[in-house]
Amino acid sequence: MTATVLSGKPLAKLIQQKAQKEAKALAEEGVRPTLAVVVATEDSSTHWYVRSIERATEHAGIDCRVIDLGPDATEQVLISVLKDISAEPSVNGIILQTPLPAGVRSQELVRHIAPEKDIDGANPLSLGLLAVGQRAFAPATARAVIEILDHFDVPLTGRSVVVVGRSAVVGKPLSLLLLQKDATTTVCHSRSGPLAKYTKTADIVVVAAGRTGLLTGADVADHSVVIDVGTNVLSDGSLVGDVDEASVQAVAAALTPVPGGVGSVTTSLLLLHTAEAAREQSRAARLPVLT
Amino acid sequence: MTATVLSGKPLAKLIQQKAQKEAKALAEEGVRPTLAVVVATEDSSTHWYVRSIERATEHAGIDCRVIDLGPDATEQVLISVLKDISAEPSVNGIILQTPLPAGVRSQELVRHIAPEKDIDGANPLSLGLLAVGQRAFAPATARAVIEILDHFDVPLTGRSVVVVGRSAVVGKPLSLLLLQKDATTTVCHSRSGPLAKYTKTADIVVVAAGRTGLLTGADVADHSVVIDVGTNVLSDGSLVGDVDEASVQAVAAALTPVPGGVGSVTTSLLLLHTAEAAREQSRAARLPVLT
Repeated sequence: MTATVLSGKPLAKLIQQKAQKEAKALAEEGVRPTLAVVVATEDSSTHWYVRSIERATEHAGIDCRVIDLGPDATEQVLISVLKDISAEPSVNGIILQTPLPAGVRSQELVRHIAPEKDIDGANPLSLGLLAVGQRAFAPATARAVIEILDHFDVPLTGRSVVVVGRSAVVGKPLSLLLLQKDATTTVCHSRSGPLAKYTKTADIVVVAAGRTGLLTGADVADHSVVIDVGTNVLSDGSLVGDVDEASVQAVAAALTPVPGGVGSVTTSLLLLHTAEAAREQSRAARLPVLT
Repeated sequence: MTATVLSGKPLAKLIQQKAQKEAKALAEEGVRPTLAVVVATEDSSTHWYVRSIERATEHAGIDCRVIDLGPDATEQVLISVLKDISAEPSVNGIILQTPLPAGVRSQELVRHIAPEKDIDGANPLSLGLLAVGQRAFAPATARAVIEILDHFDVPLTGRSVVVVGRSAVVGKPLSLLLLQKDATTTVCHSRSGPLAKYTKTADIVVVAAGRTGLLTGADVADHSVVIDVGTNVLSDGSLVGDVDEASVQAVAAALTPVPGGVGSVTTSLLLLHTAEAAREQSRAARLPVLT
C-alpha cells in the first residue's frame, strides 16, 4: 500500500484565483489591494522569498510595497514604520520579514501591526482573538494546513489530531484552529518522549517541528492522514520535510509532499488574506461612523 | 483504594499570605495595591461574589474599588470606564464582572483592559501573549490548576495531560500554560466522543466543562491525577464539580474536591496578581523614560 499524495499545488492555484477574483472586484470599486512587506536584512534567502511574493502579488492584481530598511535599522525605526503603515489607509496587509537586525526584539515590533492588517497573524493579539473565536488572521502556514484538509475532504469534527511542534507561528495557532473545527487536539513537542504513543492512534498527524526524519512509518497507523509542515534545507540545497517520506508513505493513508505541499499553499493564502483585508477595510470605510 | 484528596485550602492560604506580604512590602514603599472591580448587574450571586472579593482584599491589605455602573450601563459607558481605570495610575488590577447588561458585548469591552492590569486574563491580548510565551496574566482559574499541581509536586514535564473543555477562560489558556510547563496537552470537548479514549491513558485529567457527572471512574486510570474545575449549583443550592466524585475517587490516584479545590485557590490568585501588578507598575514608574 502507498499513501495518497496530497499535493498542495492545485489548491494553491484555486486560492490564487480566488484572491485574483476578489482583487479584480475591488479594482472595479476603485480599491487596489496593497501588501506592505517590511524587510531589515541582507539575508539572500529572505530577498529571494520577498521577490517571489512580489511576483505572486503582481500576478494576482495586488500591489506590493517592499519597505527595505536595511540591516542596520533600529527597533525604534521599525516600530515607527509599522505604526505608520498600520495607520495608512492605502495599505491593507502587512508582513514583517525575519531575520531582524541584531538586538531588535521581534515581540516588540509585531504588537504594532494593526490586527486588521496582520495578514500573517504575527501580532499576539491576532492569536488571542483566534483563541476566543473572534475574527483575526491566522498565520498563513497554520491556515494552509486547515485548507489542505478541507480541500481533500478530510473530516475534522470529533477526529483526533496530533500536532507535533508548539511554535507560536504553526503549532499553537493551528491547535486553536483545529479546536474551532471540533477536532480533539493534542500538541506534542521535544519533551513529549516517543511520539508513537500519541501519533499512532491519531486520525491526522501534523508535523511542524523543523527536524528531518522526525516522524517515521512506525509512528503512524494505516488510516492516518499526515501533513508535513517541515521545510529543512539539506547541505546539497534540496528541501525536505520533517517526515521520513519513504517509511510513512508505506504505512499512512495520505501524506503531503515537501516541496509542493503546505508551503505551496502558504503564499497563496497571503494573497487571499490581503484581498480579504482590503475588502473588510473598504467595507468599514464606507460605514457611517457611530459616535 | 481511595484517591488522595488534593484540598486547595492550604495552598489558597499560602498564596493569600504571599499576596499579603507583597502588599505590606509595597505599603512600606508608599504604594497601596488597588483592585478595581467593574459591575453592571443586579444579579445577586455576582454581588455576593464581589463582597467576598472585598473581604479577601481587605484581609490582604489590598484596596478594592467596586465600580457599580448599574444594570442599565451602556457599552460606551463601560468602555469609557475601562479606559479611564486602565490609564489611572492608582489602579493596579482590573476585573470586569459578568453578567453584563443585555446588548453589551463582552468582547468589545475586555480589549480596553490594559494588559498589565488584566489580572484575570480577560483581554485576548493577554491570551495571545501567554501563547507566545511573553509576560501576561493568565485567567486566575487556569493558573489555579497549575499552582495546585505544583503544590502537590505533580510533575508536568513529558506527562500527558487531557483538558476536558475548550473555553476561553479555562480550557484554552490552561492548555497554553501546560505546554509552557512541557506537558503533552490534549484538549477534548463536547464533540470529542467518549472521553475514555483520551482520559484513560492520561497522567493528569482536568475537567472544565460545566457538566455534572461528566467524568466517571470508568474514564480514568489508577495513576491518574484528576483536577475538577467544574462549579455547578444543584437545585438544592449545593455545589458540585464536573466529576462523579464517588466513582472517580474509587479509581484515581488523586482528586481535587468541589468545593474546596480549584475554586478556593482562584480568589487568592486574584489577590496575588493584583500585588504582582502593583509591584511591576511601581517598578516601571521608577524607570527612566527612554525616548
